[in-house]
Amino acid sequence: MSANVVPLRPSGPEPTLQPLLSLTAQGMNAVNSVILERMQSEIPLIPALAGHLISGGGKRMRPMLTVIGAQLCGYHGNRHHKLAAAVEFIHTATLLHDDVVDKSDLRRGKTSANIVFGNPATVLVGDFLFSRAFELMVEDGSLRVLKILSSASAIIAEGEVDQLTAQRQIETSEERYQSIIGAKTAALFAAATRIPAVLGECSESEERALEEYGRNLGIAFQLVDDAIDYDSNAQESGKDKGDDFREGKMTLPVILAYARGNEEERTFWRDAIAGFRVEDEDLAHAVKLINRHDTVRATRDRAHYFAQRAIDAIAGFPANEARAAMAEAAEFSVTRRY
Amino acid sequence: MSANVVPLRPSGPEPTLQPLLSLTAQGMNAVNSVILERMQSEIPLIPALAGHLISGGGKRMRPMLTVIGAQLCGYHGNRHHKLAAAVEFIHTATLLHDDVVDKSDLRRGKTSANIVFGNPATVLVGDFLFSRAFELMVEDGSLRVLKILSSASAIIAEGEVDQLTAQRQIETSEERYQSIIGAKTAALFAAATRIPAVLGECSESEERALEEYGRNLGIAFQLVDDAIDYDSNAQESGKDKGDDFREGKMTLPVILAYARGNEEERTFWRDAIAGFRVEDEDLAHAVKLINRHDTVRATRDRAHYFAQRAIDAIAGFPANEARAAMAEAAEFSVTRRY
Repeated sequence: MSANVVPLRPSGPEPTLQPLLSLTAQGMNAVNSVILERMQSEIPLIPALAGHLISGGGKRMRPMLTVIGAQLCGYHGNRHHKLAAAVEFIHTATLLHDDVVDKSDLRRGKTSANIVFGNPATVLVGDFLFSRAFELMVEDGSLRVLKILSSASAIIAEGEVDQLTAQRQIETSEERYQSIIGAKTAALFAAATRIPAVLGECSESEERALEEYGRNLGIAFQLVDDAIDYDSNAQESGKDKGDDFREGKMTLPVILAYARGNEEERTFWRDAIAGFRVEDEDLAHAVKLINRHDTVRATRDRAHYFAQRAIDAIAGFPANEARAAMAEAAEFSVTRRY
Repeated sequence: MSANVVPLRPSGPEPTLQPLLSLTAQGMNAVNSVILERMQSEIPLIPALAGHLISGGGKRMRPMLTVIGAQLCGYHGNRHHKLAAAVEFIHTATLLHDDVVDKSDLRRGKTSANIVFGNPATVLVGDFLFSRAFELMVEDGSLRVLKILSSASAIIAEGEVDQLTAQRQIETSEERYQSIIGAKTAALFAAATRIPAVLGECSESEERALEEYGRNLGIAFQLVDDAIDYDSNAQESGKDKGDDFREGKMTLPVILAYARGNEEERTFWRDAIAGFRVEDEDLAHAVKLINRHDTVRATRDRAHYFAQRAIDAIAGFPANEARAAMAEAAEFSVTRRY
């Protein structure tokens, strides 16, 4: 296997999210208004807990993708603002439930909601946001959009359960891992980019193209998220470094390090993933093995493949600013260090 | 205050669910088929966990109400089978999340899912069933039904969070308690009975009547659930007796015993609800105080009021078998001991 990575942008500057951020700034203001308004409730704990996570930052990639997708499709209405907020609510609900499931204590660089507010409130406010997301979609009134997002939600939940089943299972294959991240992450990215095609009454092939862009970008994003958790060169990711290791999650850097390792290394991985070696020095050893087999790099290489497919998926759209920003976002998804 | 309860059926036999069960038997077969079929997934843990609760019995009151409502409305299609299954999935999802929130270990007489499968899987399979419920509604395709059920879902979640906020708060008023059970329980009963009115294209006033029936019946049911938890004459309820007490839940039997108690009794309740007196002998003392002030009976009296309102709500419908079964179900909701 070659260690040469073909860079997407061999000579240019590092790709950034800047073009995407600039083009969607106005639309995201409208989306953020909907988010703030619709996370309110007469029960004060709900906006307090939801706001802890929602105002805690995060890139808001998914709603941004809905907004930029509307531009690519030439959709000039404002229905996508509510729907982008619905997408973000579904994402927020899954983050809240993830934090309970993973017993996280850090999310987006802040103490996570389950630690501040407890598991019970975190589960229930997740349920509230999920219901609110459906209310927003019902207000919009498109059964096609409702079908896309209700189906994505079921797939996300299946992916999360599947990931749980694979936890601490050293024999988890790359194939199985692909299927998990395709469900738990890429399904919502795909829905987020497909929705504007429905609103803009794009052709079937354009709708498929936008969906493919989102799905591939989502896979690239998740691959790099999983790489960053072991990347000694990456900045703080906002979650605790080594969380995946301690939780015995079979992510690609580990799957590959196990596959490429010698018998002694494999014994270490078996013990570590089973939960018997999860101290700081074990994490340091894991990172050493991952560096030895260059599997953070290999994971980013895989991400490169999916980012390239995302870019090619939208090649049939006019070469405008929106398409360029979406392409650069895909490049960014591979190289990002946070 | 009088201790005389005016029985709904002064001289007749005890009301039962039998007429409702008989009239809905055929419809419920169809609903149960949908439930079994749609709780399947390629991820084996999902049907295993969902099936643990779903096949564990339970009265299936909510889908039965949708089925009997369709008969009352003279609706002869089969759309209500899918929608009744959706209602039961929403209910099942909230039960799974409740068990995590309350750290229950018994549900419907069986070890609860969170104990058998762990909290993470229980939360995520709840999410799956909730998503599946929305998929079923989207397949049906009625935006009016979607609006009713998405709004009910958000209200349920708000009610659950509100209940959590009131936990261990001795000063919780009956008013606040009413608002909590109206949201966490009665909203779904109301949606379950309103849906068949939408399908049957009933008049607005009939739709309102069916909704009122469900809402009042739901309140009566929850009141009696809360009474049974302290009722020394009640049969096994399928959940651990005294769960509400140990969790410091401010249910009506306690609210009234605290209100009617002397200073010494109030001190006991303050300590108990705060979580400082939750041993078996404390529970026995709590039951003694509740018996002294007859607040289980008082709670059933309140339920009687709501059951009567439920019966009166549907008085405008033709006096057929379906209406009689619905009336008897409301009477049963007051006197039931399980």
